[in-house]
Amino acid sequence: METKLKPANSIRPIVRVAQAPASTSIEPMQAGLGTLIPSPPSAIVYCEGNFAKIDGKTANGLVRHSEVYRILSIIDSTHSGQDSGLVLEDAANDIPIFENLDTAIADQVAIPDTLIYGMAPSTGRLSLEHRSVILQAISLGMNIVSGLHEFLSDDAEIANAASEHGVSIRDIRKPKPSKDLKLFDGSVADVDALRIAVLGTDCAIGKRTTATVLAAVLNAKGIKTVLVGTGQTGLMQGAKYGVAMDAVPSQFCCGELEVAIVAASEAENPDVILIEGQGALSHPAFCTSAFILRGSQPDAVILQHAPKRTHRCDFPNLPMPTPESEIALIEAFADTKVIGVTLNHEGMSEAEITEAITSQSQKLGIPVTDALSRPTAHLLAMIIAAYPGLQENVPAAAV
Amino acid sequence: METKLKPANSIRPIVRVAQAPASTSIEPMQAGLGTLIPSPPSAIVYCEGNFAKIDGKTANGLVRHSEVYRILSIIDSTHSGQDSGLVLEDAANDIPIFENLDTAIADQVAIPDTLIYGMAPSTGRLSLEHRSVILQAISLGMNIVSGLHEFLSDDAEIANAASEHGVSIRDIRKPKPSKDLKLFDGSVADVDALRIAVLGTDCAIGKRTTATVLAAVLNAKGIKTVLVGTGQTGLMQGAKYGVAMDAVPSQFCCGELEVAIVAASEAENPDVILIEGQGALSHPAFCTSAFILRGSQPDAVILQHAPKRTHRCDFPNLPMPTPESEIALIEAFADTKVIGVTLNHEGMSEAEITEAITSQSQKLGIPVTDALSRPTAHLLAMIIAAYPGLQENVPAAAV
Repeated sequence: METKLKPANSIRPIVRVAQAPASTSIEPMQAGLGTLIPSPPSAIVYCEGNFAKIDGKTANGLVRHSEVYRILSIIDSTHSGQDSGLVLEDAANDIPIFENLDTAIADQVAIPDTLIYGMAPSTGRLSLEHRSVILQAISLGMNIVSGLHEFLSDDAEIANAASEHGVSIRDIRKPKPSKDLKLFDGSVADVDALRIAVLGTDCAIGKRTTATVLAAVLNAKGIKTVLVGTGQTGLMQGAKYGVAMDAVPSQFCCGELEVAIVAASEAENPDVILIEGQGALSHPAFCTSAFILRGSQPDAVILQHAPKRTHRCDFPNLPMPTPESEIALIEAFADTKVIGVTLNHEGMSEAEITEAITSQSQKLGIPVTDALSRPTAHLLAMIIAAYPGLQENVPAAAV
Repeated sequence: METKLKPANSIRPIVRVAQAPASTSIEPMQAGLGTLIPSPPSAIVYCEGNFAKIDGKTANGLVRHSEVYRILSIIDSTHSGQDSGLVLEDAANDIPIFENLDTAIADQVAIPDTLIYGMAPSTGRLSLEHRSVILQAISLGMNIVSGLHEFLSDDAEIANAASEHGVSIRDIRKPKPSKDLKLFDGSVADVDALRIAVLGTDCAIGKRTTATVLAAVLNAKGIKTVLVGTGQTGLMQGAKYGVAMDAVPSQFCCGELEVAIVAASEAENPDVILIEGQGALSHPAFCTSAFILRGSQPDAVILQHAPKRTHRCDFPNLPMPTPESEIALIEAFADTKVIGVTLNHEGMSEAEITEAITSQSQKLGIPVTDALSRPTAHLLAMIIAAYPGLQENVPAAAV
């Protein structure tokens, strides 16, 4: 592809939600009161052939929200020359998409700090083509961040190249050694904060995105909220508390999540802790949400659902569950209640979204909204309807 | 302790179920048709302070049944001089208990092949005292087998000692590298064998023991049965198919179990596949059975319960669930049915066992028995009541 969108790096705006501010400097930035705050490392996200698709969910998530890395651009030759925000959801974000690593780097005044492997294929494996891109980035002096189950730091060729070029490899999913993992001990029951888990009817359906939007609107209203991440994308985005649950040996899943929730409670003393779900409790392959329900013991659950999705992501022979059946399963499995449903509007027109919100809320008897296409006030109202007391914690001026 | 039971090695009988035959030779044994079958390696099981207790469940299991290792003796100074069968369940087995490694070895004509670390503490950690015993065994040239979550082969001191003395370390719980782990793909649905999972209302409650007895009685009746192990004890005992689920990253738990079941089906073409459960589906810390239900998609479930246990093992603040609530949870979580309950008679008199069998079967409306204290025909009848067609596969003479 020849067409390229020329980004205006120097005037790139702050990306919505909480993307770190753009800066072309790799020097520490001067903050207001004379404190030196290091600039977040700059990063190019590699997502060849998958941007805005389900298996590109790490890149999609980083474009929407990134606290740790300053996202410069995306690599995906099938969208090269386009603005990633326009590709993803009809709102320009000035993060361009390039054909390959060479063109992405040519757009910068200096070699960026980091290459993020921005795909989450269900196999968790690295192809030969992708391997060569990672080795190229290492040879250019870029650090590597990966959410693959195959740990790049354990790969002899990649580890040797990283050592030779003095760069780091961050395997988001690499768990601590077993001897440092914690067993569940029940201490989560003593956490004061209201705990709400955001579960879903499938993988890659928008649980994390809804949880991120909900955390932002609650915090904006003065209801102090911390999001505990449970997947590699949330941790790459900068979730301060969390664990990549899928990579933890099952014996320690409940305990490691409990540790993250207790740490968030002790350090932040929040009113609300949101817990990101994984897969679906009903999913035959990915039911880590079982451990999320046991380990977090949530007071309430919000269920994310995509009305137009016909079969489970990556499983063409498995039909999607209904929200009714998933809610019944969740409430049978754990001592909690589902207080609302949020929609993923993939494949839906505006009219269809409106119709689905109306019909589902009537059918289920609980509030239904869409965190991205509907006002965030609706999402807030869902929480307040279930927990009106939350507003009492908030100074009148903030409500 | 001074009292010691002198074992008569040369006349040690074959231990019940399927313990490998005793032999003092480490040379291959001559089999009937001229084939050389290697003698199973001899082993001493270290279980200091825990034999016949819940945290000694690996040693308890190996004394009851061992296909891979020829169990010579147990080390537990609190029972030294006793017969392990008498300590465990009132039936001598001629596997003596010794005070320490020195006295256990002094009882043998040669240094045994293996020291098995026979405890399964919920923390999965090695104490300093236990470390010194392992190092002593290594220095004597014994191979080490461990089911700890802390991998001895990754411990520099232990690994160096093993290397120096030319012995092996087998960490039962060490999973394959992530890149070699398999995701669930639904192929388990094509397995012809009837699949029955043996779940329980708690950890360390006898699921594996009941499954082992059930496999033996079904095979004895000509109903070909394979037991797929899911824990470290079953794998140490010699389960030919299985995976230590608790040690597998949760993303791959369903898939790795599916692989083991499909492998058992393809290699053995059995009528029945029994799947060992782990923990309890209701357990807040150990609910790996969620993955066992999803990954094995069992036709039926047998539930093991201990009527006299008041709180969950290692969790004094968590009361035990009732069989009713666990059955309701299992049947809500998975498309399966509980066809019977088996009792662990810990703390019960004969009269209490009889009363519990009667009252529970009336209350639950399904058969109830005890695999160890009641005739195995009752266990067989439980299966045949649910699947009368199974007998049709069996030659008349075998029934």
